[in-house]
Amino acid sequence: MYIFNTIQEIQDYISSARAAGRKIGFVPTMGYLHEGHLELMRWAKQHCGTVVISIFVNPTQFGPKEDLAQYPKDLDRDVQMAESVGVDAIFHPSVAEMYPSGYCTYVDVERITERLCGLSRPGHFRGVATVVTKLFNIVKPDQAFFGQKDAQQVLVIKRMVADLNMGLEVVMVPTVREADGLAMSSRNIYLNREQRQAALVLNKSLKKAKEAVEAGQMDISIIHQLVVATIAAEPLAEIDYVEIYSYPELEPVIKMGGPVLVALAVIIGQTRLIDNMILGVEDQCS
Amino acid sequence: MYIFNTIQEIQDYISSARAAGRKIGFVPTMGYLHEGHLELMRWAKQHCGTVVISIFVNPTQFGPKEDLAQYPKDLDRDVQMAESVGVDAIFHPSVAEMYPSGYCTYVDVERITERLCGLSRPGHFRGVATVVTKLFNIVKPDQAFFGQKDAQQVLVIKRMVADLNMGLEVVMVPTVREADGLAMSSRNIYLNREQRQAALVLNKSLKKAKEAVEAGQMDISIIHQLVVATIAAEPLAEIDYVEIYSYPELEPVIKMGGPVLVALAVIIGQTRLIDNMILGVEDQCS
Repeated sequence: MYIFNTIQEIQDYISSARAAGRKIGFVPTMGYLHEGHLELMRWAKQHCGTVVISIFVNPTQFGPKEDLAQYPKDLDRDVQMAESVGVDAIFHPSVAEMYPSGYCTYVDVERITERLCGLSRPGHFRGVATVVTKLFNIVKPDQAFFGQKDAQQVLVIKRMVADLNMGLEVVMVPTVREADGLAMSSRNIYLNREQRQAALVLNKSLKKAKEAVEAGQMDISIIHQLVVATIAAEPLAEIDYVEIYSYPELEPVIKMGGPVLVALAVIIGQTRLIDNMILGVEDQCS
Repeated sequence: MYIFNTIQEIQDYISSARAAGRKIGFVPTMGYLHEGHLELMRWAKQHCGTVVISIFVNPTQFGPKEDLAQYPKDLDRDVQMAESVGVDAIFHPSVAEMYPSGYCTYVDVERITERLCGLSRPGHFRGVATVVTKLFNIVKPDQAFFGQKDAQQVLVIKRMVADLNMGLEVVMVPTVREADGLAMSSRNIYLNREQRQAALVLNKSLKKAKEAVEAGQMDISIIHQLVVATIAAEPLAEIDYVEIYSYPELEPVIKMGGPVLVALAVIIGQTRLIDNMILGVEDQCS
């Protein structure tokens, strides 16, 4: 497995892989990998002859009040984990390599960034769209793999790829969960035993919504109340948001009649956890 | 010469040109071609095996007060002119092909868009950067050719290409002028005989600035005054702006010490004309 720090090096590598006729699969990450990331890499490996991942803690997607400097790092561990699932190359650039002096170009995806995590993290998706555009232009992948846990991020990137004619396929990989249903997250380690138990309420509330829809419930406000009530019954859980929008447009919706995204952010102790489920489709991924 | 209306068609064409090992040269236009455009196409033809131009009056670069519907069109004439200089294919999409329903992604180049024409036309460069990103992603050119007459536009696009790692070369082609020095423009036909004569003051004032710099003048404010005074001496000319900035950064500058862009917009009758010159470089293009 190769590790490249410069754009020139990764591009030379990609050029030879492409010249050899290999399909390029790409998984952008901010490092500190967990099982969810590895699942993306396994999917990439199944679909593409060459798998490249990036490890880059992107400063432009952190707000001024968010502590970029605190973001966890462990490159040695990341390298071992990536190698264990057959990744071919890691692109690990410096901030100066990605944003040299005088940098001033940004990509904005409007509307679908104005809801959910876009509300609580202004500027976040501008940073995501910009760095992902740069990474796509550098790596020129045939397919890029993102986890459903950040469903809004996947929608933003799909929209951007379509709107700007980027000519690659964005693949959404189902959320990887612990045996008891908790969505994988680097943040789960912050939970103590009681909080860890309480955190099951995220997945539990989404399952209740799913059961209600399957039983014929059409009224979005009733489904919404069901999710809110389920979480409210857990004393250690505090709701940041519970939202239901049409999928993939993320428009307000009042009656079931097509796919909807049920998305939630819940604070347990000091830890903000997110989860979501897509309902109203035949082949449900969650 | 081919004319394609859909993204799929032009991409299929480009793929076969590339498979045949040909370099792709690209000239984006809004149509109603003149000699300046043809010069870009000739340059492209000299450097690239396959030359593609686009003809698309891009709605997102017109302000709400600018009359998009009035923009002149003559496709038959454009086709003949393009063919006469050896263009291989024209991409002529509809607005719906470029901006389908739900479109919501935009590219912003900050700072260098906040001066000169960016001030009098808010949102203009956002539209330009967005449509050029789309066209570059569709055509995937090795080189793209733009005229120096819109020097700020060239700088914005060069900055965007570098910042977003687009991996193509932006070539700035010197302004094509009439025998008497007037920069070519579709708008020159609006000038009557007297106005046409008065319009020579644009190039004349730039030449005075050049002579002053060559004679050793270092003080930007004196060079600026010289240009303003030259234009002011022409009764039919009204200054929109005369600005001198560092080149290519477009930062304010007080003393000569590197390349500068002298840029002006002048209104003659009802017609707004622009021109510019880059001073303080060895090999001067104007």
